[in-house]
Amino acid sequence: MIKPAKRLEHFNEYFFSERSRYIKSLIEEGKDVINLGIGSPDMAPSEATIASLHQSAKSPKNHGYQPYNGTSTFRKAISLYLFETFGVSMNPETEILPLMGSKEGILHVSMAFLNYGENVLIPELGYPAYQSVTKMIGASTIRYKLDENWEPDWDYLENLDLTNVKMLWLNYPHMPTGAPGSIEVFEKAVEFGIKHDILICHDNPYSLVLTPKPISIFKVKGSREVCLELHSLSKSHNMAGWRVGWITGSAELIKSVHTIYSNVHSGMFKGLQEASAEALTNSASWHKERNAVYAKRRDLAFALLDKLKCTYDKNVSGLFVWGKLPKESPDAMQVSSDLLNQKHIFVTPGNIFGSRGNRYIRISLCASEQLFNQALKRI
Amino acid sequence: MIKPAKRLEHFNEYFFSERSRYIKSLIEEGKDVINLGIGSPDMAPSEATIASLHQSAKSPKNHGYQPYNGTSTFRKAISLYLFETFGVSMNPETEILPLMGSKEGILHVSMAFLNYGENVLIPELGYPAYQSVTKMIGASTIRYKLDENWEPDWDYLENLDLTNVKMLWLNYPHMPTGAPGSIEVFEKAVEFGIKHDILICHDNPYSLVLTPKPISIFKVKGSREVCLELHSLSKSHNMAGWRVGWITGSAELIKSVHTIYSNVHSGMFKGLQEASAEALTNSASWHKERNAVYAKRRDLAFALLDKLKCTYDKNVSGLFVWGKLPKESPDAMQVSSDLLNQKHIFVTPGNIFGSRGNRYIRISLCASEQLFNQALKRI
Repeated sequence: MIKPAKRLEHFNEYFFSERSRYIKSLIEEGKDVINLGIGSPDMAPSEATIASLHQSAKSPKNHGYQPYNGTSTFRKAISLYLFETFGVSMNPETEILPLMGSKEGILHVSMAFLNYGENVLIPELGYPAYQSVTKMIGASTIRYKLDENWEPDWDYLENLDLTNVKMLWLNYPHMPTGAPGSIEVFEKAVEFGIKHDILICHDNPYSLVLTPKPISIFKVKGSREVCLELHSLSKSHNMAGWRVGWITGSAELIKSVHTIYSNVHSGMFKGLQEASAEALTNSASWHKERNAVYAKRRDLAFALLDKLKCTYDKNVSGLFVWGKLPKESPDAMQVSSDLLNQKHIFVTPGNIFGSRGNRYIRISLCASEQLFNQALKRI
Repeated sequence: MIKPAKRLEHFNEYFFSERSRYIKSLIEEGKDVINLGIGSPDMAPSEATIASLHQSAKSPKNHGYQPYNGTSTFRKAISLYLFETFGVSMNPETEILPLMGSKEGILHVSMAFLNYGENVLIPELGYPAYQSVTKMIGASTIRYKLDENWEPDWDYLENLDLTNVKMLWLNYPHMPTGAPGSIEVFEKAVEFGIKHDILICHDNPYSLVLTPKPISIFKVKGSREVCLELHSLSKSHNMAGWRVGWITGSAELIKSVHTIYSNVHSGMFKGLQEASAEALTNSASWHKERNAVYAKRRDLAFALLDKLKCTYDKNVSGLFVWGKLPKESPDAMQVSSDLLNQKHIFVTPGNIFGSRGNRYIRISLCASEQLFNQALKRI
């Protein structure tokens, strides 16, 4: 019998993978499930994005392998977008590497920098893939404390045994809590990275969703020495299914990621790259309109949290709201299961982001007002 | 300074990644390079394939995350295709996992089954990514001997120290030599895998290109116990740039690959899946026409080998011809460099597939007859 590798003992199938299957089975039984779980935009990309995909795919010349590091056109479009959106200048030839979604970037960065047995600092709470991927490649995870604003507790971090710590994951706007972060947080992170020779990997997929002003860690002086940043079109451009993102940082750090990447992948479909370059030129009003829709839904999500007697912070960015369960309530997993099985409403239990999430639930804004109103009626 | 992981000392940037950049720089200097290197089909997918992509991308509902294990429609199309093409029955629910190209499958399979320090048998010669990926995850490579027909030398394999050997890579039609393989080779592989409890991973991307009859390892009794098979639309359906493939095998083995996959990826764009399902229904005459084009080019490639005084086997399958350099010639790397720099013709040096390839060159059939004729004139 062929045994799976031991690494599979340390993590499970991705939570949403297993849960989506269960929800699908409920729907097939005829249950009208309202899915407020995953952050999968229900709105479409801009019309010009789709038109660009069509245009590119029509050409018989666009179906062969593309450059391992993305087309020059796409990298230039990314560079311009980073400058216009965040005010940072990244060289399209050497400092930007397109990826098939930023999620896979977690693996490639980990492969490029982590040795067996080295330690990685992961926010408690944080995106589950940081932890599973770290374990997957034989490195060790240390969950670090966030303070009451869901920002890193730097005193706590400074007092940790940092021997053998190679990398720290950071993510603002923060998922799942929606804490917006700030340039000050990034400054402290860069200082910490330089002081302890620790790679700071900032995961930035929510930067345009309900944020007053998008921020990048590369606005901070010295950041190129120790930082990488992941970006994604999934949330900001309604292209979650397309699997398009990129990683940016100094030429030297990107080169290591690219060495891994070129041995594992063979580039990205030209049509997806050309359409993505087009998407990056979406107008300010396109983004404003999208945010206006999410803002309305967010009010309904708050109303839903009220009905569930949850408390919450209204000053949140990103695609989710984050509610603290009342004292008398069972834990998050139970609440999520009960809502799904009894009311056919799926909300994400906070514990999948770390044990501190046991008393929280996360509601996605990726459902229409009509669905939110239905959900409100059901509770 | 942030140091790259030690694994990067054991392999380099992928050969074609580095070489493509150099070729691009020559073209930018105005050199008219004829690229007979990589197997990137220059012909287009079927018209229905492109139309299906357009149709799917038009719908505003098709841009969110897709199932981690692919859409049910695509998996069913794959299952039907496997049955009609190879006569094998694989369950679309549990035995098929769509991938973003079969190249990335090498990583996912290795992650799912290999522990740190375990050994992997890799054909000498073979696809370079088997070796780099094995090293990437901290397993060890043992290159195994192929006989004079480029088939595994089973006596040699039986006499190896097989302690700690977990997996064997197999690939027919064989790349780079074009050896067609046979059911008998697969039978021996399955017997070997069962006897020694070794996972046999068969990489099958060339099965429809210039083969008399496509064959799958799953035609062999007992194969489900120890085998996985990778498939790709890159070569057979002119979709190399699209990055679409799949892995198939028993539910138990696929489950382990899927656990890795769901933690690293978030599914594949629906448009690509729907178009790929359409591509799998390409008619027999579509495939016949494509092969007719390659057959004509193959004759020109043989003529090119004649001009270079190479010897070769005419009974080859797949997208390449494979020529042995004459005794007086410098080694493959030198020949390839000289041809590129002096004649602006790129052919792949055989040594990148293993040291036994030092005296061979590989010519891709992915260039028009006109380009082959130009190349013939230049030499």
